Amino acid sequence: MEHLWLIGIGTGSPAHVTGEGMQALRDAATILVPQKGAAKDDLAELRRRIIAASGTAARVVPFDYPVRDPDLPYMARVAAWHDQIAARWQEALGSAGSDGPVVLMVWGDPSLYDSTMRIAARLAPPPRIRVVPGITAIQALTAAHAIPLNTVNGPVQITTGRRLRDHGWPGGAETVVVMLDGECSFRTLDPAGACIWWGAFLGMPEQILYHGALEDAADPIVDMRMAARAEHGWIMDTYLLRRV
Amino acid sequence: MEHLWLIGIGTGSPAHVTGEGMQALRDAATILVPQKGAAKDDLAELRRRIIAASGTAARVVPFDYPVRDPDLPYMARVAAWHDQIAARWQEALGSAGSDGPVVLMVWGDPSLYDSTMRIAARLAPPPRIRVVPGITAIQALTAAHAIPLNTVNGPVQITTGRRLRDHGWPGGAETVVVMLDGECSFRTLDPAGACIWWGAFLGMPEQILYHGALEDAADPIVDMRMAARAEHGWIMDTYLLRRV
Ligand SMILES: C[S@@+](CC[C@H](N)C(=O)[O-])C[C@H]1O[C@@H](n2cnc3c(N)ncnc32)[C@H](O)[C@@H]1O
Ligand SMILES: C[S@@+](CC[C@H](N)C(=O)[O-])C[C@H]1O[C@@H](n2cnc3c(N)ncnc32)[C@H](O)[C@@H]1O
Repeated sequence: MEHLWLIGIGTGSPAHVTGEGMQALRDAATILVPQKGAAKDDLAELRRRIIAASGTAARVVPFDYPVRDPDLPYMARVAAWHDQIAARWQEALGSAGSDGPVVLMVWGDPSLYDSTMRIAARLAPPPRIRVVPGITAIQALTAAHAIPLNTVNGPVQITTGRRLRDHGWPGGAETVVVMLDGECSFRTLDPAGACIWWGAFLGMPEQILYHGALEDAADPIVDMRMAARAEHGWIMDTYLLRRV
Repeated sequence: MEHLWLIGIGTGSPAHVTGEGMQALRDAATILVPQKGAAKDDLAELRRRIIAASGTAARVVPFDYPVRDPDLPYMARVAAWHDQIAARWQEALGSAGSDGPVVLMVWGDPSLYDSTMRIAARLAPPPRIRVVPGITAIQALTAAHAIPLNTVNGPVQITTGRRLRDHGWPGGAETVVVMLDGECSFRTLDPAGACIWWGAFLGMPEQILYHGALEDAADPIVDMRMAARAEHGWIMDTYLLRRV
């Protein structure tokens, strides 16, 4: 694997893919596709549609995600898991051969809360990495609500559900975007003066949006999230909080 | 203007435009294009190339940016300027007629440090706004350097050059992305322990990248920025700072 290309594919709509992303799929020799585990069926189907739409002649090579070892402490568990994923990539390529650029299609943008770049850094010899940017869940959220990310020249903090729970509203931030939140952590905040714009399945036909004063919107969002999760078997959601 | 579509076109490469953006250009009846003033010639040329590549049959209607009134205080000056831009849009459409969706092509993503949405809110009657997300300068920067935006599950602060000068390194932030900085404001920081990844003309043939320890990289970046600005007559740059 001399050349490894990480292509951001956006967050659910095949139309999120850029011209550069489509061209990179066509220029690839091999596309590595996760077969099960982390990838839900719906997401695998989206990847297939994007590959078909690109018209690429690249070889599509499946690989399986390893299982995380529950007996290891968190950091060691993640490190071991990343090593194993890198090994699976090598393995999948080894059997298929690789005579040109190898592509991984990365959800959203490869730079945002994604481990693909860190896993790629474990490959030996290190491949030359090319990153093709993609639409993030943050942009899918602000576009769907037709709202600005920032107040006029104001700062924006991007953070995780866990950090919001552990540290509260980030000091000095007018706007906070929260990702990786399986627990509706906005409930742990003092809602006074805050508004929330929430979105699930952004960019997909199942997309759900809700917004309002945090005080009024918190309960409806918790309910909608639970119902949608039960219906689909999984959920991805992101939200923006603003205090002005 | 019943339907106004704000299409993010990315930050310099026509290949940044998404499938959704291209389709929206084709579905539009009218495309409003700034003729001079804020838009540099290079950027006008990029818009023309994207319009041509989309194959749209939409009417392209030029409008001129008004000049800001230097005698007004800052906030009043911006408000008056936004009113005037909204009036120019109405005027341009009035003469051309509008029988379908009107498009504005917005640099990067329409949600990020851009006033188009706020100007559109001044139109009467208010149009229905659709936002098509686009690749931001932040994503063009991290992709070009092939670096993650965040540390593992870490927070990211997006801010402006002015705020960095006035408030210093944002409290608690590991990663800071700085935009709208005409003054290399990173020079006002204590460089100890910080790294910088800098990019100018991201996505364009003129793209320049540099990175290193802030201590070592600050002077070279100041010099490169000055030289590139003198050569091209203008510059746009963005950078990421990380303290770990
Ligand atoms: C591992 S991160 C990947 C982020 C991705 N690289 C991006 O650029 O958006 C997964 C998180 O992204 C957000 N997310 C991704 N896709 C989403 C979608 N379609 N709708 C809502 N949130 C989404 C959720 O907060 C989820 O917990
Ligand atoms: C008015 S803001 C618009 C941002 C845009 N909406 C986006 O999504 O990137 C302009 C700032 O964006 C950054 N920027 C935009 N295009 C850029 C490019 N091609 N290269 C470097 N920085 C860029 C610069 O920091 C510049 O001061």
